[in-house]
Amino acid sequence: MKILVINTGSSSIKYQLFDMEGKRAIVNGLAEKIGEDIGELTHKVIQADGQTQKHEFHDKIADHGKGLEKIVDLLTIGEQAVIKDKTEISAVGHRVVHGGEAFQTPTIIDSKVIDAIKENIPLAPLHNPPNLMGIEVAMSIFPDAPQIAVFDTAFHQTIPAHAFLYALPYELYTKDRVRRYGFHGTSHAFVANRCAEYLKKPISELNVITIHLGNGASVTAVKNGQSVDTSMGMTPLEGLVMGTRSGDVDPALPFYLTSHLEMSINDIDSLMNKKCGMKGLCGSNDMREVLEKIESGDQQAKTALDVYCYRIKKYIGAYYAVLGRLDAVVFTAGIGENSPDIRELAIAGLDHMGLSIDKQQNRKRIDGINEINTNDSKVKILVVPTNEELKIARETERIIKA
Amino acid sequence: MKILVINTGSSSIKYQLFDMEGKRAIVNGLAEKIGEDIGELTHKVIQADGQTQKHEFHDKIADHGKGLEKIVDLLTIGEQAVIKDKTEISAVGHRVVHGGEAFQTPTIIDSKVIDAIKENIPLAPLHNPPNLMGIEVAMSIFPDAPQIAVFDTAFHQTIPAHAFLYALPYELYTKDRVRRYGFHGTSHAFVANRCAEYLKKPISELNVITIHLGNGASVTAVKNGQSVDTSMGMTPLEGLVMGTRSGDVDPALPFYLTSHLEMSINDIDSLMNKKCGMKGLCGSNDMREVLEKIESGDQQAKTALDVYCYRIKKYIGAYYAVLGRLDAVVFTAGIGENSPDIRELAIAGLDHMGLSIDKQQNRKRIDGINEINTNDSKVKILVVPTNEELKIARETERIIKA
Repeated sequence: MKILVINTGSSSIKYQLFDMEGKRAIVNGLAEKIGEDIGELTHKVIQADGQTQKHEFHDKIADHGKGLEKIVDLLTIGEQAVIKDKTEISAVGHRVVHGGEAFQTPTIIDSKVIDAIKENIPLAPLHNPPNLMGIEVAMSIFPDAPQIAVFDTAFHQTIPAHAFLYALPYELYTKDRVRRYGFHGTSHAFVANRCAEYLKKPISELNVITIHLGNGASVTAVKNGQSVDTSMGMTPLEGLVMGTRSGDVDPALPFYLTSHLEMSINDIDSLMNKKCGMKGLCGSNDMREVLEKIESGDQQAKTALDVYCYRIKKYIGAYYAVLGRLDAVVFTAGIGENSPDIRELAIAGLDHMGLSIDKQQNRKRIDGINEINTNDSKVKILVVPTNEELKIARETERIIKA
Repeated sequence: MKILVINTGSSSIKYQLFDMEGKRAIVNGLAEKIGEDIGELTHKVIQADGQTQKHEFHDKIADHGKGLEKIVDLLTIGEQAVIKDKTEISAVGHRVVHGGEAFQTPTIIDSKVIDAIKENIPLAPLHNPPNLMGIEVAMSIFPDAPQIAVFDTAFHQTIPAHAFLYALPYELYTKDRVRRYGFHGTSHAFVANRCAEYLKKPISELNVITIHLGNGASVTAVKNGQSVDTSMGMTPLEGLVMGTRSGDVDPALPFYLTSHLEMSINDIDSLMNKKCGMKGLCGSNDMREVLEKIESGDQQAKTALDVYCYRIKKYIGAYYAVLGRLDAVVFTAGIGENSPDIRELAIAGLDHMGLSIDKQQNRKRIDGINEINTNDSKVKILVVPTNEELKIARETERIIKA
């Protein structure tokens, strides 16, 4: 069975084609700069041995529909084709950012589901509209394939009220749906499950803190396999320091920025989402660049990294308190998987919580799961590669087989 | 030696007169509704045996100057007088909310200090102006007594950069002074010192989490006697759930409230400071009332209390991670000293961190410090009455004797 997984942004389509029998992606690609004069399409065919052939195209991609059509052509026509025609694709799995309280699990998309995703646009004005566009385009191109929505928020729907409520007028929750939703749910769920497999423990008995560090970053407290708290909130702006996002700040900051610096609310929105985080603190949101700057003696970059890691440490502590018993801490996603310095700094000084890192092992590159705790560490510390697309493909398969 | 301690609000003057030899307040009082048609003045004379005589006055108090003159009259003239004339007052200690980065310790007030307090007005627009007014009025009424400023922020000036920086453009710190300052410093310092005395440990070796729960609420991580992190931030809005203040929320909340509910930034400011917290969640910011509501089966009040206590628990965990070794957790201030339910809920489930509460002892009312941990609790849990005014009086005495 072949399943296409799509993640649509405002001017991009990320996609992977999975061969579910082979349990692997056979194609992954990215169409970018959709709507611009010259679009970009990178299409990689992945062999069973892991070798890839990369195909690049620079040409106008007028809209998301044209983009997806081009992707279908690449999948079906020419020397790089991997399937005979598009009907070989059994289902399309869509990453949808905000499912609000309507969706606790992946869902077959029908008109009601589309309406519900539309209702959540105010909560995710940047993400849900392109996600919807991707769904509509895919429905027209694959009219016979079931379309499945997998929500970033779904895994966190088990968070209890005392953790998801902000201390705001209660009506803002009941009427206007202001609450903590959490994101990166597919990734947190994926690595929690991989962690359970690795520890040979039923997921229903696993207590783990999963730390997803990519461009966006979030921490989740997983108790008995379920999310019970997470650092992102109503939007993906809350919590950890990110590449360009501030994470937690004093809620009074906008009042100061408007009164003292005469910024508009739109300026502040743009500032906090695009010019803060590591970029704001030290001028770079590329963690490799930040680490190079530190290497060359840049003190401001070092301070920025200290803030970044200190924030992670505080969340580990907060969720350690919440969970009661902790089996493991898991690092994942681009930075979490590839930055031993950050793992070391975030875990430093947590021996009293049973967390001791093996500095040598932490620096090793391992295919698959890397156990980086010392032998006598009470709590396991794992590096677990995430694979949101594979998780979406599996959920999609599970649903269409059900 | 007699020292007068003053805490001036926009329409109020709180005051206490201390007899430093007797180590106690001999008068405490509150002038309220200054500038309104009918002001209120409550003046209590405290005997050595703790008995008090209360004197109440309802009359117009035109301004803070008239209010302080009336207070001086009550201290010096009539049957309730405790001193012969105002020259018996050796010094006046002022609580000043925001000292910014300029003040790490209590300071004799001169024109430079007044200028520096003025410079911090943008950071504390509600608090510093009345504090300044109190200082100016006291200087004119007590021209020969030294005036000392004790800053709410001073104790927290030891917080390191990785904990006080927000992940914002670095210039917002260097140019516009946006950073975590923290408040309630006088109270956190006072109870940390009391805790050290109680544990017979030098304060320089004490690691303690101090939890100040009053109308405002904050938690401080004290390492080797110094503040290394605290939950309030640039303003007193960040951190724990409070009576009417939200504490931590998603920083994107204002963007949603402006775009979705068309609220102005001023509406949001007022909302988050005055209509959130416990009041927002369950309609009451009086914790006794909240507890009564719960007693009578009010589920929303119970949820509100759960949010309140859960937030405390998360901060305990975060600071446990930060501190490495923890000697004690201290509850203080109105709610912290008087609400065993809240202490029990906040500490519940933290046995893995060495925190076990003795439920019976927790319910006892004790004069002075109440040790409410079980005998086998690795970390002490203490209820320590705070006394910010006494601390201000002592600091004032220390400075004028230096």
